[in-house]
Amino acid sequence: MENMFWLGILGAIISLLFAFLQSRKVMKFSEGTPKMQKIAAAIRQGANAYLRRQYKTVIKFYIIMVIILAVLALTGLVSKFVPFAFVTGGFYSGLAGYIGMKIATSANARTANAASESLNKGLTVAFSSGSVMGFTVVGLGLFDISVWFTVLKYLFHCGANEIATTMVMFGMGASAMALFARVGGGIFTKAADVGADLVGKVEAGIPEDDPRNPAVIADNVGDNVGDVAGMGADLYESYVGAILASFAISAAAGYGWAGMLLPLLLAVVGVICSVIGTFFIRTGEKADQKALLKTLRTGTYIAAILAAVAAAPLTYFIMNNMGIYVAILAGLVAGCAIGYFTEYYTSDTYKPTQELADASSTGPATVVIGGISLGMRSTMAPILIVGIAVLVSFFAAGGAGGFTKGLYGIGISAVGMLSTLGITLACDAYGPVADNAGGIAEMAGLGEEVRERTDALDSLGNTTAATGKGFAIGSAALTALALLVSYVDIAAGKMAAAGKVMDITLVNPPVLIGLFVGAMLVFLFSSFAMSSVQRAAQSIVIEVRRQFKEIKGLMEGTADPDYAACVDLCTRGALKEMVVPALSAVIVPIITGLILGANGVIGLLCGVTVTGFAMAVFMSNSGGAWDNAKKYIESGTHGGKGSDCHKAAVIGDTIGDPFKDTAGPSLNILIKLVSTVSIVFAGLIIAFSIM
Amino acid sequence: MENMFWLGILGAIISLLFAFLQSRKVMKFSEGTPKMQKIAAAIRQGANAYLRRQYKTVIKFYIIMVIILAVLALTGLVSKFVPFAFVTGGFYSGLAGYIGMKIATSANARTANAASESLNKGLTVAFSSGSVMGFTVVGLGLFDISVWFTVLKYLFHCGANEIATTMVMFGMGASAMALFARVGGGIFTKAADVGADLVGKVEAGIPEDDPRNPAVIADNVGDNVGDVAGMGADLYESYVGAILASFAISAAAGYGWAGMLLPLLLAVVGVICSVIGTFFIRTGEKADQKALLKTLRTGTYIAAILAAVAAAPLTYFIMNNMGIYVAILAGLVAGCAIGYFTEYYTSDTYKPTQELADASSTGPATVVIGGISLGMRSTMAPILIVGIAVLVSFFAAGGAGGFTKGLYGIGISAVGMLSTLGITLACDAYGPVADNAGGIAEMAGLGEEVRERTDALDSLGNTTAATGKGFAIGSAALTALALLVSYVDIAAGKMAAAGKVMDITLVNPPVLIGLFVGAMLVFLFSSFAMSSVQRAAQSIVIEVRRQFKEIKGLMEGTADPDYAACVDLCTRGALKEMVVPALSAVIVPIITGLILGANGVIGLLCGVTVTGFAMAVFMSNSGGAWDNAKKYIESGTHGGKGSDCHKAAVIGDTIGDPFKDTAGPSLNILIKLVSTVSIVFAGLIIAFSIM
Repeated sequence: MENMFWLGILGAIISLLFAFLQSRKVMKFSEGTPKMQKIAAAIRQGANAYLRRQYKTVIKFYIIMVIILAVLALTGLVSKFVPFAFVTGGFYSGLAGYIGMKIATSANARTANAASESLNKGLTVAFSSGSVMGFTVVGLGLFDISVWFTVLKYLFHCGANEIATTMVMFGMGASAMALFARVGGGIFTKAADVGADLVGKVEAGIPEDDPRNPAVIADNVGDNVGDVAGMGADLYESYVGAILASFAISAAAGYGWAGMLLPLLLAVVGVICSVIGTFFIRTGEKADQKALLKTLRTGTYIAAILAAVAAAPLTYFIMNNMGIYVAILAGLVAGCAIGYFTEYYTSDTYKPTQELADASSTGPATVVIGGISLGMRSTMAPILIVGIAVLVSFFAAGGAGGFTKGLYGIGISAVGMLSTLGITLACDAYGPVADNAGGIAEMAGLGEEVRERTDALDSLGNTTAATGKGFAIGSAALTALALLVSYVDIAAGKMAAAGKVMDITLVNPPVLIGLFVGAMLVFLFSSFAMSSVQRAAQSIVIEVRRQFKEIKGLMEGTADPDYAACVDLCTRGALKEMVVPALSAVIVPIITGLILGANGVIGLLCGVTVTGFAMAVFMSNSGGAWDNAKKYIESGTHGGKGSDCHKAAVIGDTIGDPFKDTAGPSLNILIKLVSTVSIVFAGLIIAFSIM
Repeated sequence: MENMFWLGILGAIISLLFAFLQSRKVMKFSEGTPKMQKIAAAIRQGANAYLRRQYKTVIKFYIIMVIILAVLALTGLVSKFVPFAFVTGGFYSGLAGYIGMKIATSANARTANAASESLNKGLTVAFSSGSVMGFTVVGLGLFDISVWFTVLKYLFHCGANEIATTMVMFGMGASAMALFARVGGGIFTKAADVGADLVGKVEAGIPEDDPRNPAVIADNVGDNVGDVAGMGADLYESYVGAILASFAISAAAGYGWAGMLLPLLLAVVGVICSVIGTFFIRTGEKADQKALLKTLRTGTYIAAILAAVAAAPLTYFIMNNMGIYVAILAGLVAGCAIGYFTEYYTSDTYKPTQELADASSTGPATVVIGGISLGMRSTMAPILIVGIAVLVSFFAAGGAGGFTKGLYGIGISAVGMLSTLGITLACDAYGPVADNAGGIAEMAGLGEEVRERTDALDSLGNTTAATGKGFAIGSAALTALALLVSYVDIAAGKMAAAGKVMDITLVNPPVLIGLFVGAMLVFLFSSFAMSSVQRAAQSIVIEVRRQFKEIKGLMEGTADPDYAACVDLCTRGALKEMVVPALSAVIVPIITGLILGANGVIGLLCGVTVTGFAMAVFMSNSGGAWDNAKKYIESGTHGGKGSDCHKAAVIGDTIGDPFKDTAGPSLNILIKLVSTVSIVFAGLIIAFSIM
């Protein structure tokens, strides 16, 4: 069985090849008029410049960390592979984001141009671009895991358990990069968006994406560096993290090679099913929005069903334990169910968002209160679903008989949930491309009809993004639980060796305090993320106001605004502001560990996971609902665009921006980064903690 | 030693007597002009009518619960004393709130009238009224505990341990009443406040408390039923809960009578020190606001220092263990420290609130984002302080040698924190009276100077309220931890008897899921509380708009608005809306227990406590900062009243209303009610749970 791991590399090649073919397909389309090409070039240039500067900043952090890890490796406190693995994890995570951004900035004008021919052509370009990203993320993830596996097994002749417990440490590099990308990109995009909206829409009363708005290019750059590159790095990390956590628990459960082969082959099967699923995404030339949604859903569900079917014989042959198959199914079903409820709470075709739109009739305050209340309420379904999935996975996988066997069930259910990531991420990543296409159509003056089509694509993107977020959040919770279990397993061995007592019962004060600190970290991190956006946005507001005032003829359309100034402001703001939140996620678990010991760290991990999960759902859904309540009003209810209701809803939407695109999704990464940091530094903490 | 418990009754009598004398002092002042008397009567009548209807609603819940508890008592699943204790706890909690409301509604016009003579006289009336409330709460609490103690010991001849484990169940009645009072009163007051502000201040542009606003009487009624009656019931429950939890842990630690006598006598000493403290609250005739704050602080700190000094010999003679004294000190210091940081984050004399006011220059969205960020950031200090207090108390009280002895330290530190509640609550409860006095001064047209004085008193009240909230939140966290420990102790015995295994390690799936459900309950409860306010406020907005439109001559001051209609709407809204959040706190732990067993319940309690504590601090401080940022702008910065900045700040303040006065403080009660419900139903849950 240990010789079948080359299938992982095969899966990686299939995935990357498919991504390459899709990108060729995109590039065959025309970028449209010279004006469109010029706008697209400006966006591309801004996004490129930002990402290059972001990576330059992050590299400093990586150099420092590698030095620290190298010292720890030399003193035997971490495995000698960790420094190298840390770098590759960060590199591939960053690369996934970069490739996603590259194709997205090439596809935006092409989508707009294709949409001027037909809705369906627009969909084809945007979705193909999204699938480049989806399959790149999956392919790079499988590649990184398989290569390391091969190196450890055939070059260093490590055994199954050693490979498993070593590789779980590799997640940290990917998580750290993902956090920088999500937070930095999230601050960039929302500073630009909030800034553009506050002055453009609210004060000056010009439409969204109006070329007279100096922040409009920055806003479109932001979609690419935040929603695309940030998301790519994020989901790369989720995907790799879930597989590696299963590896580690497999070792604890005594499943040997088989327990590691299953998650890897599940992922490979998922790639193939996802590729098949994409072929079902097509519509007739006269498709409306509903038909578009239907075809995307069909593709996703076909991939999921195929994966569910294929997983049965796979599990049977590898593990000969169909309880584990039930755990995989539980993960797949839970992902879809969370996606459904996310859509229920955030789409304007359901009551919650419609009622939120009603609240706008009594002004912005009630919209804000209503949106916060909606988001908080929406935490119930995902938490119950994850709870049920955990219970089902645990007991189905044999938790009543062997505790660690049950925990393996939880780990594998996370892999099940993410197995068809290729296609779910494609649906998710297509949204920002459509959003950009709309911006370009507006700026290039492509006319009402084209704008309507790109709006339809964009609005559809919001819905698919909801489903994608469901998978991201649900898998983050399950992966974090799996990482927690790995940590407990690793720490227990090290503590016993150091003569310390592991007591992780809930009445042990260090555990309780760890829980409190974990909850605190979630609040603190969210606060940092939001105040960063606020500060960066305020600087944009001031700059846009300045340009409106000082550039003569700007409002009349006879002079061009200074777009580059806003892009530059956003870049500097994001790079400056991303450091503190990202570092807090690395430093807090280490300090907590040094004071409260490993027992306290376990409390911390639980506190971060539990509170972070609820907070992430709350923030994402509040933000999503505000956005769609505004769109609902713009579609003509409550007086439509320009009414008092609309103004109130725009304020809600603006507040929701950092909720749903900066703090919320970053929390998914935070809960995993804290776990991987704790795992990597377990040796150090247990050796030097004062408790 | 067991014969010294009569001192508890003596303490109760001293406290109640002092409250009576203070109320006589208040009543000697004049209520002012006939117009003032008329307004005060309207407020009094509205508050009375609301409280009577609230109690009538709550009584139904109590009848159902008593029947359930009686059935459980007959089947032996709860102690036979529980149904009676449940009723007395609820009764005294409600009574404490009622008396507080009575004196506050008698003192408001008297404060306004006294303020027309001098600032100092205004302070005297308002503070005396606050101390009636403070000492009534403490007196009734001591009385209830001492009487039950006497009945159990001398009538039923129970031993120390039996008394301790029985009496901890008594908290549930008080907690349930407190939750109804806080939630119901909180919805009433904020529906009226939000409704009055949204239409009056924002839309019609008339000042706060303008008599032309139809919701103005309801707003003033709300201060009394929410901020006074609700807070009274709340802190009654905190006070009693902390003492009873110490009783229960004392039994587990094997401290017998001595371990119970110490918290009781600490409370008695605290009463005496608080009474002495009040005599230091006086100023010269020409005092300014700063001098007022100084005198209130002096009184509070003198009481705390005296209590700290007196606790030393007390602890020495009763327990002969000065480590426990350190735990008491840790509690007292932690309470003051949390109060300081609450003030730092919410007072406009410090940077955070001033920066929040700056954010208003870019509109309401940045004010809201900034306020949420500020509140989330402010969770750090209280959580670290509580964490340190827990560690210090645990180890000082001997946790390294005997685990339960350390836990007793945590319980007694909560009692230490609350020992001078008499005076801290007096400072807190004086605020709403001053607020009401300002309203009456405005409505009765008492002139600019008087209004300035009542504003000074009111603004001071906001600061002292911050300190009071620090104590309320900090003690809630410590008490909840003590109750958690009691629950674990009680459940361990019952589980062993039922042949079930207690496993509360953090990797046991029911424990983990319990944690998630606990976090979820906090979000869900907050959502309910806020959407209740939103719905009730929307009905007020519509009614006020209707009156402005339909009552001719209202804006010109020639016709009176229909105040009663708004009071009635608020009453109906609050009574209807308070049921779901309050019931969720009772039902969720029972259902969780029946499915996940006692292990899951312990996870739930930790999840609720940890997430609830952070959320309560966040919501209270965000709300407080928005309120004071608005006041800061009104004081003349950023363009002052009527400027765009002011309008943005008013929106922030309006959103903050349900944060700081409905959801936030209710969470303090929630975390304790969930614990006491779990304790009472432990027998039922362990007998019938499926896990």
